[in-house]
Amino acid sequence: MPFSLSSHSTSSWSYPPVVPLDRSQQAKLRGCIDGKAKPPGSLGQIERLAEQLGLIWQPSSPRAESAVLLVFAGDHGLTQEGVSQYPSAVTVAMVKTFLAGRASANAFAAATGARIRVIDAGVAADLPPHPNLVAAKVRHGTANAAREPAMTHDEAVTALTRGCELAGAEIDAGTDVIAIGEMGIGNTASAALLAHRLVPAPLDACIGVGAGQSDEGLTRKRAALIRAAARSDVTAPLDVLAEFGGLEIAMMAGAVIGAAGRRRSVIVDGFISSVAALVAIRLCPAARDYCVFAHRSAERGHGLVLEAMQASPLLDLGLRLGEGTGALLALPLLRAAARLLTDVASLDDVLSGAI
Amino acid sequence: MPFSLSSHSTSSWSYPPVVPLDRSQQAKLRGCIDGKAKPPGSLGQIERLAEQLGLIWQPSSPRAESAVLLVFAGDHGLTQEGVSQYPSAVTVAMVKTFLAGRASANAFAAATGARIRVIDAGVAADLPPHPNLVAAKVRHGTANAAREPAMTHDEAVTALTRGCELAGAEIDAGTDVIAIGEMGIGNTASAALLAHRLVPAPLDACIGVGAGQSDEGLTRKRAALIRAAARSDVTAPLDVLAEFGGLEIAMMAGAVIGAAGRRRSVIVDGFISSVAALVAIRLCPAARDYCVFAHRSAERGHGLVLEAMQASPLLDLGLRLGEGTGALLALPLLRAAARLLTDVASLDDVLSGAI
Repeated sequence: MPFSLSSHSTSSWSYPPVVPLDRSQQAKLRGCIDGKAKPPGSLGQIERLAEQLGLIWQPSSPRAESAVLLVFAGDHGLTQEGVSQYPSAVTVAMVKTFLAGRASANAFAAATGARIRVIDAGVAADLPPHPNLVAAKVRHGTANAAREPAMTHDEAVTALTRGCELAGAEIDAGTDVIAIGEMGIGNTASAALLAHRLVPAPLDACIGVGAGQSDEGLTRKRAALIRAAARSDVTAPLDVLAEFGGLEIAMMAGAVIGAAGRRRSVIVDGFISSVAALVAIRLCPAARDYCVFAHRSAERGHGLVLEAMQASPLLDLGLRLGEGTGALLALPLLRAAARLLTDVASLDDVLSGAI
Repeated sequence: MPFSLSSHSTSSWSYPPVVPLDRSQQAKLRGCIDGKAKPPGSLGQIERLAEQLGLIWQPSSPRAESAVLLVFAGDHGLTQEGVSQYPSAVTVAMVKTFLAGRASANAFAAATGARIRVIDAGVAADLPPHPNLVAAKVRHGTANAAREPAMTHDEAVTALTRGCELAGAEIDAGTDVIAIGEMGIGNTASAALLAHRLVPAPLDACIGVGAGQSDEGLTRKRAALIRAAARSDVTAPLDVLAEFGGLEIAMMAGAVIGAAGRRRSVIVDGFISSVAALVAIRLCPAARDYCVFAHRSAERGHGLVLEAMQASPLLDLGLRLGEGTGALLALPLLRAAARLLTDVASLDDVLSGAI
């Protein structure tokens, strides 16, 4: 009974109740959109997005003005296997870059009018306090999933819970839209393992070049992931999460459920964020209704993950950076969709001269 | 010698000089983008857009903060042939809706932080003054192009000149980005004729359902356009414009050249705006360098027009409304691209700890 209102436990995580959208209101919303001062259907995907936002916010009017990008950062023991061309130390260097306001995500947040908060989900280094840094570290990076479980069940549950609470607190403070993004050297490797088990799909179809890899590097990545996958045959979402990591992915999955639990939309970025959304949806199917999929990443495997969630992303710009950059670029589309419902006159009013 | 700096006359319109982009700076800009704190190429189309904006603004840094959408409105004599399911009176009703702030374009402008100005290029009715309305009427709608030329050469030149001056004045007043859009019942019919002659392409491939048409209505539209096309075999851009209209398309074409002449980018909306850009580019090829193509419209014929300009639009959202709605949704992407160049640290600075 995943759709009831009581709290649930999957394996051992009790997540807050998530109410599925009330589809009985869909025809009425559709009628309202069709009656706007424009040819019916002429705003394409924006109309479908308006319908989703309308259902999410009912009986209130949807808003998407106040938005925050939560960038979850974590390190991956899998980097010991050479799965990335970048060393783990880049994770902390990029966290500092976010905090200094000098990363791509900061530039895109300034471009789209969103705030950024960086969450230390599990960076391997100790980070000094900063007003925009949320100290939520579960552990100093995951263990090497090619050799042992990335984290314990308790650690996975802690990460999910913290992500869920963080998103909830943002919404309680008045944020209309949560966007999720990540930074974690090696996290396309973890995400490939999660996709493989949770889609499910052949491991090979889930492995891509991530931040960029040579042929040799990709062979190394593939070999490490084959070893990791061979270590365990788990398929339950919490088990898969604990087995393969990562901490930032777990916390993002929690944030998706946290936003859904508060009946607010969550903009999902690219491959890794989508895998986190898939974890969330496998734990709590009703969370799907609250997800807006920002873009189709150039990373191999993203298509499979999107399909598993019947997701049609809004943008296709060849992005493969992460950080929530794609999620931020989709934010203005949500604002436009919300305002289509709230700001635009009806055709009747236009033609009758009431405008 | 369309690329020289002196003024030019094509048929009889003298447009201001348009400087083609200095491609000698391209490798340097590419190097700067590749050196940012992200994997090279990982921001896909945003990187190519950043390159274009960087070239447009050099030696200054690009900006896309202050933006205005110019919505050009005009009526079409072709509506007498039943080419649209909406009566001509809807043009003026929608102009009033723009001025009341209640159209889709207003909602999207609010969502993306752009101003709107409505330009009466040739609405068939007299419009009362309004602070956001630019009275630039050339005539009360075009003549019925199925029977006679839509306008005189002088009228076409007047429309081009006014559009050019308007865009120039906006930029002189500090606007970073011009976006163009339109409102004009019947204007997909005019645009189809222009595309047919200027792409060039078979007329049938340029005709779509516009704001929505029954099979019967589409047959009527096709018959009217066949009659119009049979009336004249002109192919020179100014001749084609005068022959087939419309006034808002001519003024938009002028605005494209006006923005290019001031070395500022112009965001081109959907099918009709793209046809206006094609007119501009056929008159002044260097104007192409300054055009950013917002989206691929659902209107038939848009693909052909985009191809004729080697344009790869940023968005594909199934839009077919016009009004500049798609151009507005692309604006945040320009802002993100500009800020990629100006705000984001270099990878060297990140790795050396300078951040």
